[in-house]
Amino acid sequence: MAGLVDWPLVQIDPPVWRAHARRDSPTGANAEIDLEIMLDLADGLLEGVHPDAVGVSFGGPVDYASRVVRLSHHIPGWEEYPLGALLQEKYRCNVLIDNDANVAALGEFFFGAGKSCNSLFYITVSTGVGGGLILDQQIWHGADNMAGEIGHTVVDPLGPRCLCGKHGCVERLASGLYIAEDARLLISQDVQNGPFLRELANGNLESITAQLISRAAALNDPLAITLLDRAAHALGAGIGHAANLINPQRFILGGGVTKSGERFWEIIRQTARQTALPQIRVEIVPAALEDYAPLWGAVALADSWLSDPS
Amino acid sequence: MAGLVDWPLVQIDPPVWRAHARRDSPTGANAEIDLEIMLDLADGLLEGVHPDAVGVSFGGPVDYASRVVRLSHHIPGWEEYPLGALLQEKYRCNVLIDNDANVAALGEFFFGAGKSCNSLFYITVSTGVGGGLILDQQIWHGADNMAGEIGHTVVDPLGPRCLCGKHGCVERLASGLYIAEDARLLISQDVQNGPFLRELANGNLESITAQLISRAAALNDPLAITLLDRAAHALGAGIGHAANLINPQRFILGGGVTKSGERFWEIIRQTARQTALPQIRVEIVPAALEDYAPLWGAVALADSWLSDPS
Repeated sequence: MAGLVDWPLVQIDPPVWRAHARRDSPTGANAEIDLEIMLDLADGLLEGVHPDAVGVSFGGPVDYASRVVRLSHHIPGWEEYPLGALLQEKYRCNVLIDNDANVAALGEFFFGAGKSCNSLFYITVSTGVGGGLILDQQIWHGADNMAGEIGHTVVDPLGPRCLCGKHGCVERLASGLYIAEDARLLISQDVQNGPFLRELANGNLESITAQLISRAAALNDPLAITLLDRAAHALGAGIGHAANLINPQRFILGGGVTKSGERFWEIIRQTARQTALPQIRVEIVPAALEDYAPLWGAVALADSWLSDPS
Repeated sequence: MAGLVDWPLVQIDPPVWRAHARRDSPTGANAEIDLEIMLDLADGLLEGVHPDAVGVSFGGPVDYASRVVRLSHHIPGWEEYPLGALLQEKYRCNVLIDNDANVAALGEFFFGAGKSCNSLFYITVSTGVGGGLILDQQIWHGADNMAGEIGHTVVDPLGPRCLCGKHGCVERLASGLYIAEDARLLISQDVQNGPFLRELANGNLESITAQLISRAAALNDPLAITLLDRAAHALGAGIGHAANLINPQRFILGGGVTKSGERFWEIIRQTARQTALPQIRVEIVPAALEDYAPLWGAVALADSWLSDPS
């Protein structure tokens, strides 16, 4: 999803899509190219209509107050980019911008699996593990716009080393990229490992993804089951700790890796329940809006400003 | 500090003490006896003056919205006690009540080490480990009034078993009661352990407290140093994880165990820094108000209602 550019039109009360379009960043893209695509999509969708407000979900860290993009982890050129000011200049209306995990959390809160909640923790388990917090019906950014980083809770200090330098982080054990990497390594170490997974991959280790591992687990592949059980345990422990610290009303889980079947969810729920104190609720539900959560969230972002322009 | 009854008078802008008094619960106390002491102290301090509002810091879980005490872990009879309604009936003014960790956090926020902050995490390391969160200048209670439970973050899954059933919780490794218990056990297992600690305790293991262990550590007692280093590591890891999830502006540490010297603080800061992501600030400072934090917090509680009675 690197550099995916999506653009919702705001139509509120009740919110409906007027139109939407989608285009991925081309290979070798940079910020200028992304921006050109973004504006082109927007102009095409607006058809000359003047927007009342613009909401943007950006795939990377953002300073939401100054509306400056800190960087993209995938596309060069976004470093300290004043995206909010630029769009405001162009569309002559208020522009709100936040990172995709926060915006997706807002989308689930307003339109998805968190509609009745006062607080929620949205966690996306995809190539990485990200999180967005809604507390008292608002995004909680934290002092450095970094709140919600559940991916780097250590749940197994003796576990494998994560990119962050620590060992046994939730992201190291439960993110799609790492699960696939571990599967490749374990098969290459012992050719008996993961019989169904090898078959599904047609013997091509490079083609192994978390999705393929889920399919292999459904066929009772022992390696696939071991890796997904470990991922579910890690997520459950991370969620249990977050419940103890933040005690949100609900946890909402999205992202491809969470589509790994009933056993995966059962282990998450059980581990989270065992990790949290008994007085603390642990309600864990699937995301309702899937890949569209950031788009709905961008609508909610613009909408929230229109309802309360303070 | 079980059942300690303290009672601040509200005088705002600037807040000053008019008077204060302190009385511990007698041995074998129950809720009725506690309440009698509490009302007696209050009447003595008020001297007939009618209060505008009353703030209460209670040493146990409280439903702050309904102002009902859930229970005291030390004194029987407080189960589901409608303390707020009872005081309101008696003093004919608004009564606000919250648990002591939350109220102490509010005290440090308004009058202590968190005065300039928008958010903070107050952690008390005493007989147990408790926490109170201020987010966006308000107490964050969580959906079950249980937010801030940093004491039950697991930092060493292979560590000793905690009362909560898990292994290697922050509270199991860093609370005063458990540190003292571990010291007694280790000395009784090998009489060579903890030479200075044994001397300070005059050979009476039962007299060992966390405070005595701090004094022994200052004399370079190896057992005392090992136990306090382990406690500091546990606190640092717990704080680092809380920083990743919540990203508060500041961590404020109070309670007797935190008076264990520069080495103790150094390890906490270092471990927290290594555990949190590099983009996340980790500012850890000592509490300013010490044992008076709950009293100041109760003033702030009443004051906040007087400024905004909503």
